[in-house]
Amino acid sequence: MLLAAREAQRGLARLSGADRDQAIRAVADALHRRQAEILAANDEDVARGAALSPALLDRLRLTPARLSALEAAIRAVAAQPDPLAGEEAPGPVIGGMNPPAGTTASLHASWTGPTGIVISERRVPLGVIAIVYEARPNVAAECAALTLKSGNALVLRGGKEAQASSRAIVQAIADGLSEVGLDQAVVQLVTDPAREAVVELLRATGLVDLVIPRGGAGLMALVDAEARVPVIRHGQGICHVYVDAQADLAMALDITDNAKTQRPGVCNALETLLVDAAIAEPFLSALGPRLGAKGVELRACERSRPVLERAGTTCRAAHPEDYDTEFLALILAVLVVDGLPAALEHIARHGSHHTASIVTQDPKAAERFLSEVDASCVLHNASTRLNDGGELGLGAEMGISTSKLHAYGPMGAKELTQKKRVVRGTGQIRP
Amino acid sequence: MLLAAREAQRGLARLSGADRDQAIRAVADALHRRQAEILAANDEDVARGAALSPALLDRLRLTPARLSALEAAIRAVAAQPDPLAGEEAPGPVIGGMNPPAGTTASLHASWTGPTGIVISERRVPLGVIAIVYEARPNVAAECAALTLKSGNALVLRGGKEAQASSRAIVQAIADGLSEVGLDQAVVQLVTDPAREAVVELLRATGLVDLVIPRGGAGLMALVDAEARVPVIRHGQGICHVYVDAQADLAMALDITDNAKTQRPGVCNALETLLVDAAIAEPFLSALGPRLGAKGVELRACERSRPVLERAGTTCRAAHPEDYDTEFLALILAVLVVDGLPAALEHIARHGSHHTASIVTQDPKAAERFLSEVDASCVLHNASTRLNDGGELGLGAEMGISTSKLHAYGPMGAKELTQKKRVVRGTGQIRP
Repeated sequence: MLLAAREAQRGLARLSGADRDQAIRAVADALHRRQAEILAANDEDVARGAALSPALLDRLRLTPARLSALEAAIRAVAAQPDPLAGEEAPGPVIGGMNPPAGTTASLHASWTGPTGIVISERRVPLGVIAIVYEARPNVAAECAALTLKSGNALVLRGGKEAQASSRAIVQAIADGLSEVGLDQAVVQLVTDPAREAVVELLRATGLVDLVIPRGGAGLMALVDAEARVPVIRHGQGICHVYVDAQADLAMALDITDNAKTQRPGVCNALETLLVDAAIAEPFLSALGPRLGAKGVELRACERSRPVLERAGTTCRAAHPEDYDTEFLALILAVLVVDGLPAALEHIARHGSHHTASIVTQDPKAAERFLSEVDASCVLHNASTRLNDGGELGLGAEMGISTSKLHAYGPMGAKELTQKKRVVRGTGQIRP
Repeated sequence: MLLAAREAQRGLARLSGADRDQAIRAVADALHRRQAEILAANDEDVARGAALSPALLDRLRLTPARLSALEAAIRAVAAQPDPLAGEEAPGPVIGGMNPPAGTTASLHASWTGPTGIVISERRVPLGVIAIVYEARPNVAAECAALTLKSGNALVLRGGKEAQASSRAIVQAIADGLSEVGLDQAVVQLVTDPAREAVVELLRATGLVDLVIPRGGAGLMALVDAEARVPVIRHGQGICHVYVDAQADLAMALDITDNAKTQRPGVCNALETLLVDAAIAEPFLSALGPRLGAKGVELRACERSRPVLERAGTTCRAAHPEDYDTEFLALILAVLVVDGLPAALEHIARHGSHHTASIVTQDPKAAERFLSEVDASCVLHNASTRLNDGGELGLGAEMGISTSKLHAYGPMGAKELTQKKRVVRGTGQIRP
């Protein structure tokens, strides 16, 4: 299977950008045509998953609206510029010639090195990319669009909860590919439900160029123990909102509410709310009833509980582990802190390098937060839910990297490529 | 030690670019002042290493000229633009506003997303970087300059052959750092010679953000088995020159000679020469005596041996493993192939994704080679020895990545950083 993927990838990489885009559109068309079958398969998965948590069921469920959004995301990927097109200037060359005066480095530009060699950079696919994901069946199609765009082969290993949906989606993808005469092995599904199948992918040195694990602590522990091939973790999102003393209260309420409740089962949802002590009383008094009405369970620190309870909001006492937990549910940990430094310290200790937002009207506090928080996306006066490939303009995403190697944050097609250097000479040797 | 490194790294990252450059120049000054001590320490290492191969001894040996070149490389790093400065536009935002007409994306630019959030990217250090290297003691100082430049802490683990030299160099670095009041823990040397010390670095999850192993197959096998932290391999260089039927013979001779003999002990030196059968007779007849006179041992295929021997060159029959060997010595494997497709096939099977060069006057053949060879640097009519941080304009290099994750080819300061996304809003939430 992996050998077939590699072989198919070589063929894909030789196609023009236009041909790769045509394949992506054929996949979107096939998903459109097969919508009824995909929804029926998804119904099976949902029925089998009745015992799952509401958040997991939400991730698992496909609807006509979600399939339309998926189709639109795939077509948006086809419309993006080709990540493999052209050659780029590699940046300033020390001791070499700058580009001609009055021009800027741009596509197809090149630089001249000290010996007179002309240097440029060309993007190439990574090769065979495996993705290990859990219950979200639409991941298969989004990832297929991005790997087709970037000239990579894709091996999918979805969670057993989404098995029927994943099969139906991959069948549609195969249909689309065969319509444009492309080797179906560029997108394959591992159907073996055994944990050993994941271990095999993680150990397939020379056959798999990258594994992207998307999931919780169990999957990441397996990756820690077994990975021998390069890995980019789509780790958990312990995302923070910090409401500063100088926050606009109405804005802070909207952002906190949206970040926690708009889709609680996903990784960029808010998990821990930090509130400056100076604003805790008015802010929490207004927040408690608003989140309470939406069914959010609050796990509050000793300083926030009395405020919330005076406002008529029932809440539980927070345990220390609540501040290290990705709830993926309508649960929110609340902590009152003494100003920005304490908030920064808490996020440095408990954050998962995913997403953090500050709400404040004080530009100095905002810039310090944006500068010092070590997360793939730091926001000022905006919801954590906006750290998303679509909202940031990538069209779709392979996952959100929470480590800094290769990619940090949402990964689009470009993050599935790397640059090789192309040198053109006229006989230059090393002096 | 690693905790001290992390703490010191936070302080370094808060410094301005000018302050980091000042520290780098202080290191160069200290290396200059302590040149006699460093050379004396190096003499010890060289005396102790009398039994090493000539190539290893060459890598180990420091001379006043090499120390001057090192100092110049370090000052060049200080003179480079700050990799952490400014904010960049993240590229086209789908559904968002393009930058104002007539402008191009540049530093300090930003883009507007669909909800009106303003998105930019800011480069951040990776954190604590460990480098495991073998006999080249100057690696310590080059890497220190690059990690200081990029706001990272450095943990050095040099080979025992270079122990005295490494200590003397790191002592000079510490001197320079203390002169500008910087925590010396930003550059530390692991002096424990045990293999377990390397294993500890490879398993220091949460303490080490990246390990760069530079070395041979033994070190890479250890990395395969033990690494739990992110790794960028500076693997071996099985570099190729392909002399095409349409090559300029004099140029092909110069490039082959330079690539093999200019410094045979380093990773971008030529190891396997591929010669098109159509040009084998005249090219090899001229090459044999020229390399023979320089003491190069030729390991020739069945088709090249008779030609070389007719030209009066003694050579050995190549064994299959010669084409998979990084000799790092005055040994060259020679193979006659039937044209470009056979050369591409051989490189795909035996190359180590490091460097490959084609010598030809045929632009079509050149472009096909540049496009299809999967190596960090592909060259046309130039020596493989030019795949080097200095020659490509990086000033110095942390190593040459032979895998495509994060970096591919020589790594400068920029490759030791990653981008985080900075989002500025006015209360935007996810619709």
